[in-house]
Amino acid sequence: MKKKILVIGIGAGNPEHVTIQAIKALNQARVFFVLDKGEAADDLVRLREEICARYITNSDYRVVKAVNPPRDRADQDYLSAVDRWHHDRAGLYEKLIRDELQEGECGAFLVWGDPSLYDSTLRILAQVRANGAVDFDCEVIPGISSPQALAAAHKMPLNRIGEPIHFTTGRRISGELPEASGSSVVFLDDGTALKAIAEEDLEVYWGAYLGTPEEMLVSGRLSEVAGDIAEKRQAARRERGWIMDLYLLRRRRSE
Amino acid sequence: MKKKILVIGIGAGNPEHVTIQAIKALNQARVFFVLDKGEAADDLVRLREEICARYITNSDYRVVKAVNPPRDRADQDYLSAVDRWHHDRAGLYEKLIRDELQEGECGAFLVWGDPSLYDSTLRILAQVRANGAVDFDCEVIPGISSPQALAAAHKMPLNRIGEPIHFTTGRRISGELPEASGSSVVFLDDGTALKAIAEEDLEVYWGAYLGTPEEMLVSGRLSEVAGDIAEKRQAARRERGWIMDLYLLRRRRSE
Repeated sequence: MKKKILVIGIGAGNPEHVTIQAIKALNQARVFFVLDKGEAADDLVRLREEICARYITNSDYRVVKAVNPPRDRADQDYLSAVDRWHHDRAGLYEKLIRDELQEGECGAFLVWGDPSLYDSTLRILAQVRANGAVDFDCEVIPGISSPQALAAAHKMPLNRIGEPIHFTTGRRISGELPEASGSSVVFLDDGTALKAIAEEDLEVYWGAYLGTPEEMLVSGRLSEVAGDIAEKRQAARRERGWIMDLYLLRRRRSE
Repeated sequence: MKKKILVIGIGAGNPEHVTIQAIKALNQARVFFVLDKGEAADDLVRLREEICARYITNSDYRVVKAVNPPRDRADQDYLSAVDRWHHDRAGLYEKLIRDELQEGECGAFLVWGDPSLYDSTLRILAQVRANGAVDFDCEVIPGISSPQALAAAHKMPLNRIGEPIHFTTGRRISGELPEASGSSVVFLDDGTALKAIAEEDLEVYWGAYLGTPEEMLVSGRLSEVAGDIAEKRQAARRERGWIMDLYLLRRRRSE
């Protein structure tokens, strides 16, 4: 009986984003690995605990907490810094799976949004398996992701008819602005990328704390609303200590 | 009391993809609008009925069936053909909402996958509202989409570290192949697009009937597996009368 690891997407913030498949998986796991970032984000911890409390009916489980190794943000080479960080995390995950999980037992990692979108858990588990020191099966349970929550909140499709959608990061968007056709969803922007492109002739659909009671939405012509977004973003971040947001951009068009 | 329309994403094929939010929405609706394509796809009708039977505990609802107007596939101008088709569908939806829904009543459209990804329901409802003949509120419930089911089945992230993801269609992919960095997810390819690019130096991750017991997966170097995918696709389509599939492409890289 091999060890089994479930990687469970728990949705973008609304506890009701959780799927039936995820609820079954939550109730199958005997060990939950909680890798905190050492940062505050108490709201996120509370929200995750609320999801567990609401949906786990089986009380026969334990929680193993660990602190993710820090990433060297001073390193100028983004990829090599991320590589080293993943290497450190793979060492930690390997230790957790080796020491905290019995043969035949089932452990779980909970992932905000969907494990397939800008999350490193699957990549790190693949590295652990490639290292060969521990053996385990892996199963992935998809979850509602933030672009879906953004589109639902704005009641609109991500794509225009037959056109592509581009998912990218704040780090890259200034070099990957949408063409005449197409829409771009931007993840992981701390506000600097949107500021840098604020004068482009684009429409923007922005959202923060999506799916939660604190959800914030702004949409309009980018040059007209960029300042409003920046202010709202800064005020919310100051007040709550953290923010999770993203936005969709497309070229304006008379329709 | 306004009429209310729920647009509910019901997942990519696995009945357990359904979220708690979708289950609540299913139980809130009094009228389900079922727009069939006139085609066979009995499996899909059965699967949808199974989802309703499994999750709707309130029996106080009715189903209104209608046949979507056909699209003129002979029209050479894709956009104008789709525009006219959407116009015809907006007329039908307007009639359904006007005649089949009482003031204050709640109706629902069920959408495979997620309403925000390559689905026209939201666009058509926006057109109905813009026409101004019927008034209603609209709420969107996101659902697990096929790219998420594809990634979960292959146990991999859609993106490589920090890289973009491009969602596009079979119609466009030959002009939008992934660069050295980036990954492309291709929707709505009847097999011709993949055949046309089979000699490109790409990795492919393909899946069909995702999330169902008949799920099929193929991955590998495109030039080596394209023939296998084409054969499997053709045989499955012949046997079942329909196929829903998609795939992810990225440039090969020694890692």
